[in-house]
Amino acid sequence: MPAAAVATESPVRPPLPVLGGDVRVPLVTGGEVTYAALDYAASAPALRRVWDDVAAYAPYYGSVHRGAGYLSQLSTDLFENSRATVARFLGCREDDQVVFTRSTTDSLNLLATVLPAGCRVFVFETEHHAALLPWGEGRLTCLPAPRTPAEAVATLERALADREPHGPALVCVTGASNVTGELWPVRELAAAAHAHGARIVLDAAQLAPHHPVDIRGLDVDWVALSGHKLYAPFGAGVLAGRPDWLREAEPYLAGGGASRRVTRLPDGRLETEWHTTTARHEAGSPNVIGAYAIASACRALTEAGFEGLVARERHLVARVREGLAEVPGVRVLSLFGPDAPRVGVLSFVVEGWNSSHLAAALSAEYGIGVRDGLFCAHPLVRTLLGAGQQEAGECGAPDEGRAHSAVRVSFGAGTPDEHVERFVRAVRELVAHGARWLYRTEGGRCVPAQRAA
Amino acid sequence: MPAAAVATESPVRPPLPVLGGDVRVPLVTGGEVTYAALDYAASAPALRRVWDDVAAYAPYYGSVHRGAGYLSQLSTDLFENSRATVARFLGCREDDQVVFTRSTTDSLNLLATVLPAGCRVFVFETEHHAALLPWGEGRLTCLPAPRTPAEAVATLERALADREPHGPALVCVTGASNVTGELWPVRELAAAAHAHGARIVLDAAQLAPHHPVDIRGLDVDWVALSGHKLYAPFGAGVLAGRPDWLREAEPYLAGGGASRRVTRLPDGRLETEWHTTTARHEAGSPNVIGAYAIASACRALTEAGFEGLVARERHLVARVREGLAEVPGVRVLSLFGPDAPRVGVLSFVVEGWNSSHLAAALSAEYGIGVRDGLFCAHPLVRTLLGAGQQEAGECGAPDEGRAHSAVRVSFGAGTPDEHVERFVRAVRELVAHGARWLYRTEGGRCVPAQRAA
Repeated sequence: MPAAAVATESPVRPPLPVLGGDVRVPLVTGGEVTYAALDYAASAPALRRVWDDVAAYAPYYGSVHRGAGYLSQLSTDLFENSRATVARFLGCREDDQVVFTRSTTDSLNLLATVLPAGCRVFVFETEHHAALLPWGEGRLTCLPAPRTPAEAVATLERALADREPHGPALVCVTGASNVTGELWPVRELAAAAHAHGARIVLDAAQLAPHHPVDIRGLDVDWVALSGHKLYAPFGAGVLAGRPDWLREAEPYLAGGGASRRVTRLPDGRLETEWHTTTARHEAGSPNVIGAYAIASACRALTEAGFEGLVARERHLVARVREGLAEVPGVRVLSLFGPDAPRVGVLSFVVEGWNSSHLAAALSAEYGIGVRDGLFCAHPLVRTLLGAGQQEAGECGAPDEGRAHSAVRVSFGAGTPDEHVERFVRAVRELVAHGARWLYRTEGGRCVPAQRAA
Repeated sequence: MPAAAVATESPVRPPLPVLGGDVRVPLVTGGEVTYAALDYAASAPALRRVWDDVAAYAPYYGSVHRGAGYLSQLSTDLFENSRATVARFLGCREDDQVVFTRSTTDSLNLLATVLPAGCRVFVFETEHHAALLPWGEGRLTCLPAPRTPAEAVATLERALADREPHGPALVCVTGASNVTGELWPVRELAAAAHAHGARIVLDAAQLAPHHPVDIRGLDVDWVALSGHKLYAPFGAGVLAGRPDWLREAEPYLAGGGASRRVTRLPDGRLETEWHTTTARHEAGSPNVIGAYAIASACRALTEAGFEGLVARERHLVARVREGLAEVPGVRVLSLFGPDAPRVGVLSFVVEGWNSSHLAAALSAEYGIGVRDGLFCAHPLVRTLLGAGQQEAGECGAPDEGRAHSAVRVSFGAGTPDEHVERFVRAVRELVAHGARWLYRTEGGRCVPAQRAA
């Protein structure tokens, strides 16, 4: 009895209200349908609560930090209180700093500029580009993809133990893969890092929207995250953690706000004294709305309770996995095996299907928004697909270099069951009967070309 | 007849609607009043039109560039069309690139990373820190404050002609001072730069909200601006201009979006191929809402017409200058003389008054939001004040290093006459009768302490 089976797995709570939940989009086959946003891993819709908070604040927006007016003081308080809210949300230690950046990419690029001299960086090739690329040539060791969480820990331990010289080191690891959604053994990796005199930054871009993140409990040194994946798409991100490397490094951006005092010397040179607090790396006028939106999301998720959110998401993941398992030729990509715990992110390929073509059909024929490609994690996706697995057809966007590619479906706190059910049904129908339209690439985009014969 | 005098100078158009125009704030003297936001030079309120556009788009927000879904494609188009709108607004050349950054500070920091080897940078000490500090020691020549626009041109020409060796050079100049509001001779400085084989970037942070900016007409190589000063406070900024240095330099941020192809080599190193378009310097998920908000502001200002906006602002500037001229002991800071053309930004000191105290009284007793300090342009303000001019009292925020400081009043497209009239009246009353409260510093902020005797 499928109905009963579904009933026993029913979510413990309804989805959180998000913007765009009732947006209707046209179908190439005629008519329109409510849009199913299933690309949360790229950008999630704003929580209704976040939007309402931003809208309520917007008339009170004012210049921060130096303005003498009422709204400036209110905005300054709001900005600094947002920092405190994020610190609580992440379980920060008392002396941790919370720096507002523009995204996870920006946060990790900032961290790359504060590494002490001689610091080596260790990452797995399974990371997305934001975690692979900021560190620069020469100091990076890119570890091969492990096939179990235990192998990840062992590989890291060996690499850290073998490093020559045994100087400062940083490990950068994702909390949940942006390709497979699988959870990484962060606590164990942090213990390994610390045992070998290294520090560790947790890339929580994909973890924080789905799962509690606890800096102290995980014992990581820093956490990076993005507002736009955390239901707060207003251009801000966070780097939170140990203050010492941040304090001792050159400011990330040079400009007002970061500078405490600037003097022109008689010879025309400038003498600059920099702040040593978070302001040091936040030059320029802060993105108050972006920071406040993240804080609002932190509050909303905390109040909703991660226990219920995680249970609900686990239910949705199970539905997708069950549904895809029934479709012949579907292979879900996995590093740690099919039963590894994961957040609401799954990538897959379908035998005989071009991934761009499949993603375009899901959009045009079902109103479902997924993503195809290599998901800015080229080495991982190539490893998972294996060589020659799936040649890109005419819809493979050439500038993504996708000789092979996959489809990724991802969801979160705002996803209703119907979106996931529609997705499963759509894949089943497309694979069974083929797409009703043919698709071609136009301006780098895969679009309907003509009705299939 | 003051009434008639005002009437003949009446603005050619009403102010543009902005958010927060009807926000009421409490007064320390009892009651409340509509807030007068006169700190536009730090951050301007959002245009109502910008907010409405953002609110209308928000439900349609989706992941950009790689999403296959309808909202992803809509959002991608919106983002790229925003780029085109900004290019039109700035009068870009056909091959100019428009890179979305987070602010002017960020734009100039980006430009600092793309300078060719051996490039020298020339700035006047009159710039704000965002334009003074990004270039790094060693390659910067900081020119002394000129006292006329012609002297600025002559000083620059001499410095460029004398540079040794005569290699690549960049001039960075503001369009309008963030301290005095005075317009700089950008076209002439650009001609001088080009005559001497240098390039020039226009810092239009303070110019663009008040005045048309025309890259081609001014013949500047780049323009930098901030959304939050351009009535679009959603965390985005712009660097627009010549593509060659941008294309040839390392990506500003390393991460997804900027990378075209990433491969792990057998020896564990990474091989990365980068984009050569604007994406090269926009790693990470773009701030779509921030970019769209800037484009919306560009459209709104263009449709309102700069002719009327400039005429109206000139009227407001005249009212402030006339009003302050009648108050004994007031000195308006100026580099180019009292009649130099300027945007709606004026800084001043009042004999016998601590600037923080005066700014706090304007807020607490009149509901007016101005700013006091050195305005992140320390060398300029110190030069304008002269040594020992005004010692900071108890309200001088210690971390701004303000042994001397001024009050800045600034306004723009959304400012009604009443705000400016109230400001003039307030300064007149405060100077004539003294503040009704005493103020003290608390948490770096100047706040009412007790009723004055």
